[in-house]
Amino acid sequence: MSSLSQGAPAAAARVLARADELATHSSRPDGIERVYLTPQHRAVNHLAAGWMREAGLVSWEDAAGNQCGRLAGAEDGLPAVVLGSHLDTVPGAGRHDGILGVLVAIEVASRLRDAELPFALEVVAFGDEEGTRFGTTLLGSRAFAGSWQPEWAGLRDADGIRLGDAAREFGLDPQRIGSAARTPEQLLAYLEVHIEQGPRLEQADRALGVVTTIAAAERRMITFTGESRHCATPWELRHDALLGASEANLAIERIARARGSYATVGRIQVEPDAVNVIPGVATFSLDLRDETAEGRDATWDVIRDELQSIAGGRGLDVAIGTTHEAPEVVCAPDLRAAFAAGIQSTGDGAASDVMELFSVAGHDAMAVAAIAPVGMLFVRCRGGISHHADESVRADDVAASIDALEVAVRQLAAEYEPR
Amino acid sequence: MSSLSQGAPAAAARVLARADELATHSSRPDGIERVYLTPQHRAVNHLAAGWMREAGLVSWEDAAGNQCGRLAGAEDGLPAVVLGSHLDTVPGAGRHDGILGVLVAIEVASRLRDAELPFALEVVAFGDEEGTRFGTTLLGSRAFAGSWQPEWAGLRDADGIRLGDAAREFGLDPQRIGSAARTPEQLLAYLEVHIEQGPRLEQADRALGVVTTIAAAERRMITFTGESRHCATPWELRHDALLGASEANLAIERIARARGSYATVGRIQVEPDAVNVIPGVATFSLDLRDETAEGRDATWDVIRDELQSIAGGRGLDVAIGTTHEAPEVVCAPDLRAAFAAGIQSTGDGAASDVMELFSVAGHDAMAVAAIAPVGMLFVRCRGGISHHADESVRADDVAASIDALEVAVRQLAAEYEPR
Repeated sequence: MSSLSQGAPAAAARVLARADELATHSSRPDGIERVYLTPQHRAVNHLAAGWMREAGLVSWEDAAGNQCGRLAGAEDGLPAVVLGSHLDTVPGAGRHDGILGVLVAIEVASRLRDAELPFALEVVAFGDEEGTRFGTTLLGSRAFAGSWQPEWAGLRDADGIRLGDAAREFGLDPQRIGSAARTPEQLLAYLEVHIEQGPRLEQADRALGVVTTIAAAERRMITFTGESRHCATPWELRHDALLGASEANLAIERIARARGSYATVGRIQVEPDAVNVIPGVATFSLDLRDETAEGRDATWDVIRDELQSIAGGRGLDVAIGTTHEAPEVVCAPDLRAAFAAGIQSTGDGAASDVMELFSVAGHDAMAVAAIAPVGMLFVRCRGGISHHADESVRADDVAASIDALEVAVRQLAAEYEPR
Repeated sequence: MSSLSQGAPAAAARVLARADELATHSSRPDGIERVYLTPQHRAVNHLAAGWMREAGLVSWEDAAGNQCGRLAGAEDGLPAVVLGSHLDTVPGAGRHDGILGVLVAIEVASRLRDAELPFALEVVAFGDEEGTRFGTTLLGSRAFAGSWQPEWAGLRDADGIRLGDAAREFGLDPQRIGSAARTPEQLLAYLEVHIEQGPRLEQADRALGVVTTIAAAERRMITFTGESRHCATPWELRHDALLGASEANLAIERIARARGSYATVGRIQVEPDAVNVIPGVATFSLDLRDETAEGRDATWDVIRDELQSIAGGRGLDVAIGTTHEAPEVVCAPDLRAAFAAGIQSTGDGAASDVMELFSVAGHDAMAVAAIAPVGMLFVRCRGGISHHADESVRADDVAASIDALEVAVRQLAAEYEPR
């Protein structure tokens, strides 16, 4: 069924080799961790710049540390179709989340270097999508999309280093990060290729899928406060914050699962964190997602009531802070159609049968949606595993994604009417 | 009812003022934390040495960093009755746990400086009881009791510093820490005054109580291992180690409480500890205590089965390590009688009515029991609160404890028959 282009296997092999090379740039020896405004960020921007230039693009680093490349179209100064994703990672990451989208974009730009498109073609490698270092996500793509908040210069990493100081150390002017902003007039569309980070394509035996919407997400930090007392304290006098957090975690699982939402408690810490002291404070994160903001909020209402009830039952206080909120992002119909055509061209699904799915994970496209229509193409990953060293994609799927993205861009070019 | 000695209020005031002075030696500005082999340890040893000398004792620091003092009795070279407790703290500690026992001992030694006792009287301020820094408790008192293990020099603190290197930095020879060991021939008895760290004396309206046994305790580190995956992973594919740990924590509470044991999960950490990644590893501590080792082990058997069952239900692995194990320590009848006489002398309870209680908390006396009979006197603390900044004792209770310890030592002297 597959009908890949002649150059696709070699291009896929190059993408995977480059992903392996990027993976060597890690802040830790025992896995991949590469976060915003670090020497590792610097190193991979340098590599990406070289590959962009090799592909015929002009390349520069923008004021937010995003590595950009541009292929002029038939004439100078045209608005651009942007292809992109990110090069930063979570701790203990795999080698394809985000990275694959950047490398596939470079391959497609290389193929189109002489195409004299009716628009410019840009590639962007965002510097922060995961939010690993400063706790706030999409810093790179939000700067690109004009949503940078000056107060983010005051965000601190786990070592207490301010983002502004890290930016200066990296070689950026912390006062000018916001000037990375692009305008709606400059951009026609944003197309992102990404591994699915879920098992649905694999379960359906499909290489590629078109994203319909990106889930509504919200992140909170929840703190239970009780009393830190010696472990000789009788049961009836205890107000154990960790027991409250444990009950809460199980309640969150029960409620979200029953309602079809996705909920993850990924971080937790207790104070004083001593083996013989009852935890007086337990703080944990909650990442809550749903296909729509309405569904997410309805789930949260039930969880919040349950948190209050758990706290009340144990004589604890509960405090809730929101660190991130995003409604669902709907992918543009013409970009979905272009990706569907791209998928069809690879032989992966008949016209009526291109696989569509919504994205539970957040992506740079969510940020860019503030200034441009967005579309996303998902690539099958093994076992749905992501954010883990076992993250893996098939070479033939990567080849298909390169062909599909190229076809999508050519379809946009064919249908393009200057505004 | 109270019949305190004339000097008792002034002595109690001195003890509380010294506790306040010791509290200023902390490694953090926002509370008390003073751990083994640090500059803070050095500072309080220096203070204790000065107070011991003021009280008429010869003072020296032993090979393990315990600050010792000795009052020769009627002649040189006599075996000793030892009065002691510890000067180290947990993080966010109060100012009396351990410290009170050292300061009360110094007051009593001062009172007895001219008593020409038939034994030597020693005071020991142990350098590590809590085990805060190196995760293993009673390091100071176990060195004193001849139970030092040479491999402990390889224990590391949270910053990766080896105990041996910390000892050298502190001014000790890491190869010679074990030479702090005292022999059974040198010691007649060990008497320790300590705040109760529980509410039973307060509930009974008593200032002082005689300890019958020190609870059997055991500490374990329990690790659940699942899969760290992106938070977009569907519920049915998740193996969330923190959800396993949360279930375990609630099961431990339910089981231990029903069986009358004390259980505390005081530490927890997850990996990778990222807001958008399902925890693949969750590690937590369990401190389990019971009046007897038999009761403790019976409770643990039920908990262990439940941990296996929880892990099985969630597709997790569970690994269990034991970091500390101590059977119950039974206080010596003659030392209990001496403390009972001391309590009676203060007017706190008639002869038949001296309050007796077992200690849920562990103490240096557990370690010293390896080489000497031990006895303990508990002092009421407010609300049973300990290991917390709100730890508080009444001045009149401190005064009573000084009188009671003096009377107890005098009774041992009166009944003493050289061996």
